[in-house]
Amino acid sequence: MLKRYLPILTWLPHYTRRLAGADLLAGVIVTVMVIPQSLAYALLAGLPAVVGLYASILPAIAYALLGTSRTLAVGPVAIIALMSGAALSEVAAPGTSDYLQAALVLSLLSGLMLTAMGLLRLGFFANFLSHPVIAGFLSASAVLIAASQAAHLLGIQASGFTALDLLVSLGGELGQTHWPTLLLGLGCLVFLVGMRRYGERMLRALRLPKGLASLLARAGPVLAVVVTTLLSWWLGLADRGVAVVGAIPGGLPPLSLPPLDLPLWRTLLIPALLISVVGFVESISMAQMLAAKRRERISPNQELVGLGGANLAAAFSAGMPVTGGLSRTVINFESGARTPMAGLFAALGIGAATLALTPLLQHLPIATLAATITISILTLVDIPLVRQTWRYSRSDFSAMAVTIVLTLVEGVEAGIISGVLLSIALFLYRTSRPHSVLVGRIDGTEHFRSIERHETETVSHLAMLRVDESLYFANARYLEDTVYALVASRPELEHVVLICSAVNLIDASALESLDAINARLEDSGVTLHLAEVKGPVMDRLKHSDFLDDLTGRVFLSTYAAWQELKRSPEAS
Amino acid sequence: MLKRYLPILTWLPHYTRRLAGADLLAGVIVTVMVIPQSLAYALLAGLPAVVGLYASILPAIAYALLGTSRTLAVGPVAIIALMSGAALSEVAAPGTSDYLQAALVLSLLSGLMLTAMGLLRLGFFANFLSHPVIAGFLSASAVLIAASQAAHLLGIQASGFTALDLLVSLGGELGQTHWPTLLLGLGCLVFLVGMRRYGERMLRALRLPKGLASLLARAGPVLAVVVTTLLSWWLGLADRGVAVVGAIPGGLPPLSLPPLDLPLWRTLLIPALLISVVGFVESISMAQMLAAKRRERISPNQELVGLGGANLAAAFSAGMPVTGGLSRTVINFESGARTPMAGLFAALGIGAATLALTPLLQHLPIATLAATITISILTLVDIPLVRQTWRYSRSDFSAMAVTIVLTLVEGVEAGIISGVLLSIALFLYRTSRPHSVLVGRIDGTEHFRSIERHETETVSHLAMLRVDESLYFANARYLEDTVYALVASRPELEHVVLICSAVNLIDASALESLDAINARLEDSGVTLHLAEVKGPVMDRLKHSDFLDDLTGRVFLSTYAAWQELKRSPEAS
Repeated sequence: MLKRYLPILTWLPHYTRRLAGADLLAGVIVTVMVIPQSLAYALLAGLPAVVGLYASILPAIAYALLGTSRTLAVGPVAIIALMSGAALSEVAAPGTSDYLQAALVLSLLSGLMLTAMGLLRLGFFANFLSHPVIAGFLSASAVLIAASQAAHLLGIQASGFTALDLLVSLGGELGQTHWPTLLLGLGCLVFLVGMRRYGERMLRALRLPKGLASLLARAGPVLAVVVTTLLSWWLGLADRGVAVVGAIPGGLPPLSLPPLDLPLWRTLLIPALLISVVGFVESISMAQMLAAKRRERISPNQELVGLGGANLAAAFSAGMPVTGGLSRTVINFESGARTPMAGLFAALGIGAATLALTPLLQHLPIATLAATITISILTLVDIPLVRQTWRYSRSDFSAMAVTIVLTLVEGVEAGIISGVLLSIALFLYRTSRPHSVLVGRIDGTEHFRSIERHETETVSHLAMLRVDESLYFANARYLEDTVYALVASRPELEHVVLICSAVNLIDASALESLDAINARLEDSGVTLHLAEVKGPVMDRLKHSDFLDDLTGRVFLSTYAAWQELKRSPEAS
Repeated sequence: MLKRYLPILTWLPHYTRRLAGADLLAGVIVTVMVIPQSLAYALLAGLPAVVGLYASILPAIAYALLGTSRTLAVGPVAIIALMSGAALSEVAAPGTSDYLQAALVLSLLSGLMLTAMGLLRLGFFANFLSHPVIAGFLSASAVLIAASQAAHLLGIQASGFTALDLLVSLGGELGQTHWPTLLLGLGCLVFLVGMRRYGERMLRALRLPKGLASLLARAGPVLAVVVTTLLSWWLGLADRGVAVVGAIPGGLPPLSLPPLDLPLWRTLLIPALLISVVGFVESISMAQMLAAKRRERISPNQELVGLGGANLAAAFSAGMPVTGGLSRTVINFESGARTPMAGLFAALGIGAATLALTPLLQHLPIATLAATITISILTLVDIPLVRQTWRYSRSDFSAMAVTIVLTLVEGVEAGIISGVLLSIALFLYRTSRPHSVLVGRIDGTEHFRSIERHETETVSHLAMLRVDESLYFANARYLEDTVYALVASRPELEHVVLICSAVNLIDASALESLDAINARLEDSGVTLHLAEVKGPVMDRLKHSDFLDDLTGRVFLSTYAAWQELKRSPEAS
């Protein structure tokens, strides 16, 4: 029981020195690798860079105690930072203390929601984010993030959380481009693209072992940060107008208390919910993928608790909303992390860095961070998936397209909400006009299929109608229309068999419709039968009067109905 | 084509003198019968009584031209009046000219929405109001209406559109009860209940023919209005503190123009939508019931246009929102109406009444109207249906219960919106955790049923899993969990057959899950097969790579899969 809520108890007792060695190495690597992105994502959210470091310490420790994934690395991530920035800029101006306070409230709300969803086992909620909607949302958000970083690469000011705002803002300032910044930024971009594409191959050509080469190739951002920071310090770039991170308060994260400002809480409720759900979906997908690779198990509901704990920790340690991050998790996994202890080590490492390294980071050019964000985020733009979805299903594609367009045009919240609502609406619409076919017997078998698609045997006084949907309020009337139209078009009809093999539910509205159909057919001298009613549906029907009033019978199989009814009683 | 949009063209050319006779009689009867209720419903909506008459003239004519039901009678009805009052009292104080203007806007918006829904063929929208939600809403609204009328019966002031507001308001004023009014109101109530319950029997005991007796018994409200108006005039009840209708401006309805006040339009948008949908559902159910009795057909989309036209007419003739009314339609039908001409005659009759009778109506006590509303509305409270729904489905019952409770506690809008959202949420929740069973062969047949419910034949290296739901984003992950759990629990498994007889859709999210299942099972040395994939689903799958990657086969029937796979390849 305790183990379920404190997964650390399952692995800590079996912890060995060998595991510790692997975890320590991974922890050191992660520490070095995630410092640049942590700073960058805090800036993306409109927060001071150091908040990104704070949010990588206690939240990561909280997740290590509570989470069920062994290799997930928790901290600030790009999408969540973008969503946080969009939400926060609605309630305060970036740079003010109100903005910082609001970030704490957002973390707190998100932490409370995630924990509550986990304890109440509401993880299935996340299932309503369909794959096309998530993919569309991630692609569009990546474009927004890249656009916002373009301003930093150009050395100009631009603000906004929609494509239009960003473009207008960028366009207006384009004349102010700061060439030294642009040069530095482009240099970083080219270097990072090069490292990503050719780095590993080049390093292996230098006879480095595969693992090390791959790791060093991934260290491109770290190298870029170190080199440009040194350059910036040496050349005094800050004095020449290149924006740098600037003075960062040293020391461990301070204890913080989110303000108890109820109107603010209410305003941030929906953004916090969206951030929680999107963060959870991003995190759980990755955790499941990695767990599958090592044949480990993760528990979705406990994952919610783990991420909730991490966000609560962020709220009380001057942080920002966090979740399991794609790139930091991949680094952790590929550096050989074996248990959450690696996450603890990385958290301690980043803690040490905030104590010791912050004076060094003040010369770090913001354009360098913008280049690293841009490169890592653009991998989220998935054009082939868009094409594939178009080919497979117009309906899924339209949900994806609406999500993309609205995320770009109206911002992240509008995008994701419309995507979810549209995919639900499309599903409901589809089930409200169910597919139904008349079936006939496939010669020599007991199998019945559509008379239009297959060569089948039928008789004129018997119609066997297979309804391919659960019968519920949204399609109850449609069913009535279908049956009445069938009966009206075939005056010789004596029996109608409703084949319920695809009917998984008959709700009260549909039951009333079946009652009406039964009565109306009786008036026309047609008998109504059912076949292949599933167990749970039958159990339910027994609690109503329908079976007593039914003019015909309930057959176990379509074949049984066929054998009984194929000979017209009047002919015999 | 023209006939489709102007149904009057289908019947007018064949109109005969015999039909005209029947329609004229019905028109006269309806005229007399609906005057009291028209006045009463206008008062219920917080509008001057005469508005109810106006709304029974031009709107009825518009419907006669555009509607497809031959016997539906359109005008103010109780539920719509209650909903209108609730919406209008949010934007203006009853009795002010703003309130009247807002009522015109409400009619206009409702008319525009209904017409647009009809032309765009969006009638299926109404299907999302499930039977339990409608029944619950009608019952709760009836209670609210009765409570609001109680104040008129007690001769006190009470206001509010929620049960709590009404009770508090009534309780506070109870000491002010006006005894003469209460006496009059109770007298009317007893008389009306008596007429309804024993009237027809008594009149038939007096040897009146059945039809006439039934009609006269229904004329109870008219009799009550005539008698109490005379009493009130004779005894000067108004001077003794009994509230009466008061001076009504004579003459035909004036031409009115809804104000072009955009903020007001925006505020009334949602109420107008709810009024439109509820009104349409109430109207179409009755129209379909009556059409079935006479084997006529109605077109739901053209009905929307008809009701839309009626509401537009109301907006421009100083009216209020209207729809097909239960009691006025029953009176029309039972008085022998044959075509919409009866509605025209009734509209002309009420027009004549507003010209001639309004001076007589000024002495009519409001308590009399309250008694007629109370009696007619309480028939909507359907306790047996509540019990029946509880017995049949807890989920349907909970949607009904929430609708009832929230309608009473929070008002009509909150009630109906929550009911609809909850029934959709329950349906989605249910489909997100699909029922699935392992099936086996029923001895000697080609039929396969649940191994738990039936005596079946199975083999240990083959699992045949029937999933009883369409596969879509909300349950894609659930399917993965189910299959992985199955494979983990049966190490001897070599083949998994997914039986798709109840799968009516596989969306892009579910396709990704199937891909993942296929790959994961392949890793574990298990082959994945499909069986009984429906035609439309198969067509879709052919547009993806899934069938190429599938490790196993797609079988036409479960039996074919069984024959092929029941012998273990390793055993043979």
